[in-house]
Amino acid sequence: MSIDRTVTIREVGLRDGLQSETVFVPTVKKLELVKDLSRAGIKILETTSFVNPKAIPQLADAAELMAQVDREGIKHEIMVPNLKGAQRALEAGADRLVVFISATDAHNQANVKRSVKASLTDLEGIFNLAREGNVPVTGVIAVAFGCPYQGRVPVVDVLSITENFISRGADRISLADTTGMANPYQIRSMVKEMQNKLSTDSLCLHLHNNRGIAIANLYAGYLAGVRMFDASIGGIGGCPNVPQAAGNLATEDVAFMFEAMGIETGLNLIKLIRCAHEMEKLLQHPLPGQVMKSGPVDPQCDRENCSIRS
Amino acid sequence: MSIDRTVTIREVGLRDGLQSETVFVPTVKKLELVKDLSRAGIKILETTSFVNPKAIPQLADAAELMAQVDREGIKHEIMVPNLKGAQRALEAGADRLVVFISATDAHNQANVKRSVKASLTDLEGIFNLAREGNVPVTGVIAVAFGCPYQGRVPVVDVLSITENFISRGADRISLADTTGMANPYQIRSMVKEMQNKLSTDSLCLHLHNNRGIAIANLYAGYLAGVRMFDASIGGIGGCPNVPQAAGNLATEDVAFMFEAMGIETGLNLIKLIRCAHEMEKLLQHPLPGQVMKSGPVDPQCDRENCSIRS
Repeated sequence: MSIDRTVTIREVGLRDGLQSETVFVPTVKKLELVKDLSRAGIKILETTSFVNPKAIPQLADAAELMAQVDREGIKHEIMVPNLKGAQRALEAGADRLVVFISATDAHNQANVKRSVKASLTDLEGIFNLAREGNVPVTGVIAVAFGCPYQGRVPVVDVLSITENFISRGADRISLADTTGMANPYQIRSMVKEMQNKLSTDSLCLHLHNNRGIAIANLYAGYLAGVRMFDASIGGIGGCPNVPQAAGNLATEDVAFMFEAMGIETGLNLIKLIRCAHEMEKLLQHPLPGQVMKSGPVDPQCDRENCSIRS
Repeated sequence: MSIDRTVTIREVGLRDGLQSETVFVPTVKKLELVKDLSRAGIKILETTSFVNPKAIPQLADAAELMAQVDREGIKHEIMVPNLKGAQRALEAGADRLVVFISATDAHNQANVKRSVKASLTDLEGIFNLAREGNVPVTGVIAVAFGCPYQGRVPVVDVLSITENFISRGADRISLADTTGMANPYQIRSMVKEMQNKLSTDSLCLHLHNNRGIAIANLYAGYLAGVRMFDASIGGIGGCPNVPQAAGNLATEDVAFMFEAMGIETGLNLIKLIRCAHEMEKLLQHPLPGQVMKSGPVDPQCDRENCSIRS
């Protein structure tokens, strides 16, 4: 298994996926999902976020969830919006903190009511805490490929935030196409620019499927050297008010593509599909993932597939 | 406008898209759709098929449709299953005939109850008719990247059918991933093999999205040199019994991707989106296309977009 034939799929369904869902998934069901995802081979999970429970009721059980969650063979990464969230995440035993900043002032203001510069300054405390706790930090750059308020995002702004994150101690940068505005050529050139700032191994892509081309963007990222991709089981994370408006790429669809290409994900497709169907049952509406409907291609899987929907 | 920065999107919604839809779209509405698609810049349409109306009631109006259809600036290609269909298509003024054969005996038997060899022999009459009428012929190879009955499809079988098609006079070959089993590496290597048999300009890809990765397959095809792709407005063509099970790639999603990459399609995205919404109204269920939900990225389009859903 050469490194060039291996990718890591980072499961964000429980955080980015669930946060926009109105049906509350009980903590006990989340714990089962973590167990099932782990059994399907998921090694990195964005498990939850310590945010204001009034803002995101779905994640109100962050502390309870983290206190009981399976930890063997699985890393729990926690997104934190501020210093208080970071303190709670570290107390909860986060394996990694995930901080975020928008590439544009317009989106950052809309999201956290601060300028990019002010948000970067705010991060100082979080990075210090993480360093004391010896916990690594990922810096996420939201709307890195396009901003719904500002439109085009200058690449230099993304690079500048990247440098800032790295100088503070982030050892992984995640570029997020938050509202699905990227295209494959843009991904290719952005990854190339990023490679002047950090090793491609430290780069992650978080791609939303609002315009139906996220998997082409992901493939372009792979061809450019990226080996870590976010995805969510069943493709959850869309807008619940727009039926079928896709959110994240479906974990099982991404896994299917790589495995079909002979690139190892370490994931068991049949078990992932079962997780997606379980998530669909919990959320009580159809999910956008495709492999969960069509099944894998492999004839042996196809036979097993007969029992998947039962 | 260099040839390398231009692609052709071939609209198959009225044939491949509609044939699996149970709600009959009245001929007058089909005529309006043709007009609207033409206004949106579509230059090649797979307009209908002369098939047994009992088998596919949706296409029972093929002759009536062709008698009244707009012809200025738009080529009407007609899929024909047999000699009788070819005669009727030529009488109806088809600009091109489209014939098809499965890459595997198993699928060909299931589809037309004949072996591949027998079907190839049957084509003789159709090719003769087309030659007399001076009408070009496309040869479609179904299940070229995977067969739901047989599994893997040997590349040599696809190449052999390609040679047979060309020897009979086909000037375009379309490789169809009929049930969405292809992956990007397979597309890349298949296109490379095909390039030993014909000019890439004579190659078309017809990709279904059953496993959510058709747009990555299309991008891989583009990178390998293919410049013509089938797509259907709104992404229709899925199985009506499986809600959200995608069929073809949505024309407007494909157009969005290429235009965002700076590759000209000659299509007007706003007008395409309107066609997709019209189709959605006619079919009375949500369509899988994403750009029709999220709108284009361009801020000017975004402003126009406000009125799209009204």
